[in-house]
Amino acid sequence: MKLWQKDSGRIDKAIEEFTVGNDYLLDLKIVKFDAIASIAHAKMLKKIGIFNKQELPKLEKALKEIIVLSEKGKFIIKKEDEDCHTAIENYLTKKIGTAGKKIHTARSRNDQVLVAIRLYAKEEISETKKTVLKLIRELKKFCTKFGKIKMPGYTHMQKAMPSSFGLWADSFTESLESDLETLEFAKKTINQNPLGSAAGYGLPFKIDRELTTKLLGFEKTQKNPVFCQNSRGKFESTIIFALVQIMLDLNKLATDLLLFSTAEFGFIKLPKEICTGSSIMPQKNNPDVLELIRAKSAVVEAGLFKTLSIIHSLPSGYNRDFQLAKEPLIESFETTKASINAMAIVIAKIKVNKQKTESALTPEIFAAQKALEIAKKGVPFREAYKKAWQK
Amino acid sequence: MKLWQKDSGRIDKAIEEFTVGNDYLLDLKIVKFDAIASIAHAKMLKKIGIFNKQELPKLEKALKEIIVLSEKGKFIIKKEDEDCHTAIENYLTKKIGTAGKKIHTARSRNDQVLVAIRLYAKEEISETKKTVLKLIRELKKFCTKFGKIKMPGYTHMQKAMPSSFGLWADSFTESLESDLETLEFAKKTINQNPLGSAAGYGLPFKIDRELTTKLLGFEKTQKNPVFCQNSRGKFESTIIFALVQIMLDLNKLATDLLLFSTAEFGFIKLPKEICTGSSIMPQKNNPDVLELIRAKSAVVEAGLFKTLSIIHSLPSGYNRDFQLAKEPLIESFETTKASINAMAIVIAKIKVNKQKTESALTPEIFAAQKALEIAKKGVPFREAYKKAWQK
Amino acid sequence: MKLWQKDSGRIDKAIEEFTVGNDYLLDLKIVKFDAIASIAHAKMLKKIGIFNKQELPKLEKALKEIIVLSEKGKFIIKKEDEDCHTAIENYLTKKIGTAGKKIHTARSRNDQVLVAIRLYAKEEISETKKTVLKLIRELKKFCTKFGKIKMPGYTHMQKAMPSSFGLWADSFTESLESDLETLEFAKKTINQNPLGSAAGYGLPFKIDRELTTKLLGFEKTQKNPVFCQNSRGKFESTIIFALVQIMLDLNKLATDLLLFSTAEFGFIKLPKEICTGSSIMPQKNNPDVLELIRAKSAVVEAGLFKTLSIIHSLPSGYNRDFQLAKEPLIESFETTKASINAMAIVIAKIKVNKQKTESALTPEIFAAQKALEIAKKGVPFREAYKKAWQK
Amino acid sequence: MKLWQKDSGRIDKAIEEFTVGNDYLLDLKIVKFDAIASIAHAKMLKKIGIFNKQELPKLEKALKEIIVLSEKGKFIIKKEDEDCHTAIENYLTKKIGTAGKKIHTARSRNDQVLVAIRLYAKEEISETKKTVLKLIRELKKFCTKFGKIKMPGYTHMQKAMPSSFGLWADSFTESLESDLETLEFAKKTINQNPLGSAAGYGLPFKIDRELTTKLLGFEKTQKNPVFCQNSRGKFESTIIFALVQIMLDLNKLATDLLLFSTAEFGFIKLPKEICTGSSIMPQKNNPDVLELIRAKSAVVEAGLFKTLSIIHSLPSGYNRDFQLAKEPLIESFETTKASINAMAIVIAKIKVNKQKTESALTPEIFAAQKALEIAKKGVPFREAYKKAWQK
Repeated sequence: MKLWQKDSGRIDKAIEEFTVGNDYLLDLKIVKFDAIASIAHAKMLKKIGIFNKQELPKLEKALKEIIVLSEKGKFIIKKEDEDCHTAIENYLTKKIGTAGKKIHTARSRNDQVLVAIRLYAKEEISETKKTVLKLIRELKKFCTKFGKIKMPGYTHMQKAMPSSFGLWADSFTESLESDLETLEFAKKTINQNPLGSAAGYGLPFKIDRELTTKLLGFEKTQKNPVFCQNSRGKFESTIIFALVQIMLDLNKLATDLLLFSTAEFGFIKLPKEICTGSSIMPQKNNPDVLELIRAKSAVVEAGLFKTLSIIHSLPSGYNRDFQLAKEPLIESFETTKASINAMAIVIAKIKVNKQKTESALTPEIFAAQKALEIAKKGVPFREAYKKAWQK
Repeated sequence: MKLWQKDSGRIDKAIEEFTVGNDYLLDLKIVKFDAIASIAHAKMLKKIGIFNKQELPKLEKALKEIIVLSEKGKFIIKKEDEDCHTAIENYLTKKIGTAGKKIHTARSRNDQVLVAIRLYAKEEISETKKTVLKLIRELKKFCTKFGKIKMPGYTHMQKAMPSSFGLWADSFTESLESDLETLEFAKKTINQNPLGSAAGYGLPFKIDRELTTKLLGFEKTQKNPVFCQNSRGKFESTIIFALVQIMLDLNKLATDLLLFSTAEFGFIKLPKEICTGSSIMPQKNNPDVLELIRAKSAVVEAGLFKTLSIIHSLPSGYNRDFQLAKEPLIESFETTKASINAMAIVIAKIKVNKQKTESALTPEIFAAQKALEIAKKGVPFREAYKKAWQK
Repeated sequence: MKLWQKDSGRIDKAIEEFTVGNDYLLDLKIVKFDAIASIAHAKMLKKIGIFNKQELPKLEKALKEIIVLSEKGKFIIKKEDEDCHTAIENYLTKKIGTAGKKIHTARSRNDQVLVAIRLYAKEEISETKKTVLKLIRELKKFCTKFGKIKMPGYTHMQKAMPSSFGLWADSFTESLESDLETLEFAKKTINQNPLGSAAGYGLPFKIDRELTTKLLGFEKTQKNPVFCQNSRGKFESTIIFALVQIMLDLNKLATDLLLFSTAEFGFIKLPKEICTGSSIMPQKNNPDVLELIRAKSAVVEAGLFKTLSIIHSLPSGYNRDFQLAKEPLIESFETTKASINAMAIVIAKIKVNKQKTESALTPEIFAAQKALEIAKKGVPFREAYKKAWQK
Repeated sequence: MKLWQKDSGRIDKAIEEFTVGNDYLLDLKIVKFDAIASIAHAKMLKKIGIFNKQELPKLEKALKEIIVLSEKGKFIIKKEDEDCHTAIENYLTKKIGTAGKKIHTARSRNDQVLVAIRLYAKEEISETKKTVLKLIRELKKFCTKFGKIKMPGYTHMQKAMPSSFGLWADSFTESLESDLETLEFAKKTINQNPLGSAAGYGLPFKIDRELTTKLLGFEKTQKNPVFCQNSRGKFESTIIFALVQIMLDLNKLATDLLLFSTAEFGFIKLPKEICTGSSIMPQKNNPDVLELIRAKSAVVEAGLFKTLSIIHSLPSGYNRDFQLAKEPLIESFETTKASINAMAIVIAKIKVNKQKTESALTPEIFAAQKALEIAKKGVPFREAYKKAWQK
């Protein structure tokens, strides 16, 4: 039975199925955070006199059971429950009776889902950061192993000036470090407590929003209740944008490695254990993992696009359209973390073919250096440029 | 065991998991069509002497078993199998031995997946057409019931000229009919047989491509084997674009209905059986179904965007990136069909509030008609315009 | 003075500037087609008695003057005129007096802009087709010159099976021919006359829409006047989608050529006359033209995305948002034509390095052929596969 | 003559035109910042001994002339000059001879364009912030005038709970303040000096990068020269994403106002001076300005999409594709600033219809409050919910 049902069987079955969609499955990722937020909400309700001394511990115990069940993958959300918020209230009411029926006092599913998604996102951002740091460590180990080996630096995909694998790998480290700041900024942006904004228009009596802010570890309380709703989609897009930045780096890293591991370049050797084969060509060792990383940036970019399109031209306040902004957020986190992890394995296992890369440093690659050396001695650069290379 | 594995245990477990992704689940939608194509391929192989009289019937029987199992949802693709193509070959080899090991003669997974997706898409296009026709029928029934009721026609969201519910509903019928032509064109575009292009570079001996073209009901054989591969993503995008056109109509229809069913407009009444409620506001009857239809156009648009991004800047020939183009195709079909079906129910159930819409035809809405009537009598229109309305 | 102004100076200057935007400049591309449509409209008005025998020839003469001026780039649209529709009416009124004030009888700017854009698009589609055909001719000439030269066929960017420059170039020909059908379909879709739909709700008296349909060479009359408006953006997106298909081919062709013309591949030689240099590296011959073609596919894709976003969640009827759908249409045509033309020059001028490509056909590239030959003799393919290549 | 030309007339005219595109026009926005950066570069070159005491003041004087000319719109970049970087070097060489030919010592156009765009973007971010602050001020004035007037708060576009114009307007203020932090973060991200990274692979001798960092007011030096190039597009996207956030707010504000100013809602009155009329319907006062603001969010979103697509799957180092990332950046700034300015005028001029909004507060809107009041007295909320409203 749904939270809003006054009698059962009212709604058309096909419409019900359509509106629920896969939300009850996606919410398996969210339920733990809803339970955490519900504990904080219950404590606040106790403080303002809704719960008594006996009720709070019972509620807390039941909610912690949900957390444990959820972490074990054993908390089930039935399609008829619609979402995790309903499943939790139904669980509580069944387990502890009246106290369960009180938990929804002073909140709406609108702020309940907002706070649960924020807590989920904060944890996922931390997880993503860890995987990025792991990749950075692998890039640094790669530098220790192969950093000093010279290679051509390319512009326009043509040999340009001398470079090295150290310079190349380090450019990704610096880029990923910049991405971590973008991710940190996304966390800061969303790190505000929407709980207490209710349906988006606040409450007719005073509650203690600062208390739940403190209990849930938010940096501040998100004040305006309309903005709490209106920030939906915007905040998700801010997170996904940060993930896009990481994926852009992986996309470029994969593009480089795919090029460097062609037979023609031959700079990089991919060991068999990260390659797959062909169903028809027995000789093949294919870099599928890199191709999929390259393509997965499109998945996260599409997640950003989807989120922006969903909120495009929506009026203020809660609109059910928001429900569809949950999937791209979850999918973007999962895709990004999996891609970084796969890339970290690749970086750990590839080898540089020193002989091949160094022999690629053909004479013309030193022309700019020659021109600059001439210019350093006082010849105007534009003239030195013409002297340095004739063809 | 995978088709390309010469020994087991070679590949890094995490890399394997990453490359397989959810492909083995998505392929549950595809497996039936791969079996159908495999039957045609086997018949062709028999003709060119690869299979003998005894082998073909056994193969056909086993492949038909797969079709039946798949339709019952009982054909299982294990993660270790990677995809349906491998699962099928393994099933055949286990069931009928040597003949199974021969089925991959003169084909690659590259053309195998192409042909299976084409057959899948053709069936899905037919299914989608049926749902569109159902919606058109509902719109026509709506016209019969409410078509003559007058309503304001709007430009710039402001009352402009007199209109009617018939004119309004009929505009969607005409638009959907145009979309059906776009869908038909998409079908025509992809209705060519890629089987026999192998890995993308043909085969070293002659096969009979026209035979499988005929057996599988394709309009023609897709000639150039490199183009067979290079059309991947392009063809998917052509289909998804046609679905986007349908979703744009549903998006507009939903937008109109959401506006017309506000308390302020009050033109349309949504019965309770297609509305949902609020967890906190007991009075609410919410048009969630319409909001979700509105938002789902963003899902299909994002599917188009994802497909285009995946193939952006890929070199010629098969690239593993293509694998990720499968999900947006399947998701776009599922989303579009579900949205059309939901909208058909809505259209069947809504009612027009005649009193409210007709009273909205306030005098200023007739100003242009008045100007035109004056102009009809010989006054230059620009002067008639100034005479017809003074404020 | 604007068509809708009853007194001057009413509107806030900054708001006026904002709403006009760059429309008066974009309309330089449209004005000719508005004049053509206006002649047809005038003939229809004559038929229904609005214009008399004296007025029509005067109108036609003045409108033909506008066409000539526009083709010479001498018809000026002032910012104060807002758009070409106003500029035309003002020009007529100034030149021929009363008859000019009558031209707007039985039409609105809404259908006027629709019909002008359709005529513009039809002409541009023809122009685009011509450039595609030119590129196809160059690809065929390339085949004649270099088609028989062998090269490796790639999958996963790794050498796969033997191919040839003929097979490679021909895949683009076949793809472009498919694109031409998509473009032709786009033309068919939009080839319907919206003139007479007025503001989107028809007219209070009978006009002869079939006459203008015939005079303007449309295939049919677009019936429902609300759909005339609602098709705005949808029809533009259908055209731009066809252009995207062409750009995807150019993107892939450019990607291949950029790869093939690296020093490492060395398959293709770009002559100096299509290369640019570097400001600092005197030795460089850069394939900028190919990089820009590659990137310009993103421009047209963004045009598609913009058009879809603009109409996302708009209610029925004319909304001013539509104005912004004009620029991506014009920009997409210009970008696509320029890119095709540039690519045609490139294809005409590049040379294949036969020695380099043929020496790239190293033994492993024949492994699949070997397996297939073994299979042809009766060995099950999966076993032949294992025999054909050991490493 | 171009910087890289050793002899004239080498390049095919059509290819030249295609590669230059509209860059020479876009660069009119950039030239001032290139001159500023060139002064800093010249001071650094003096420090390391390239320029002598006589040359530096001459250079500085000539570069300041360029700044003044540019601000007056009188610095002309010819198509043959390709871009502002060439135009500047040619101007200097013509004006001051040898010293001009030396200015390119130790830099490439690659880092020259990077630094100029960064300086441009920093100034534009400041300008954008100012316009946002102006809009916030107008919203606050609106609150002072109309903030206390009650209105219905909506969820699902249906009346939900009581709200006020103060709460509504304030939600946009809070959202815009959040956007300003996003904009500030974008500035911080790009606020690093790329000058000295040359073509992307550094220089063969030591220069003083910290000096130009200090002179140009950057927060830090961007270290890795490959990352300097690879950050192109990424940094632009970070800026445009911040602008998208602002446009999303304007899109929602416009959507609300368009709804509130329909005849049916009637909450908001738009004065004639911000409305436009119709060419056929004399009674119309159309909110075009709001429709265009709504649509322009699609323009900036498309700019983001375009930028991401351009850099998708590019290998490391400078690629000419980057050139096309300039236009969406400039267009996004221009569009965003113009839209904010237009919205500020709208907010200053609109009026609330108190009678209409307050009479919209019909009884059902108080149902949730009633339920909550009952719950406050100890009745479990889920029971109170059922008691508060019966229909």
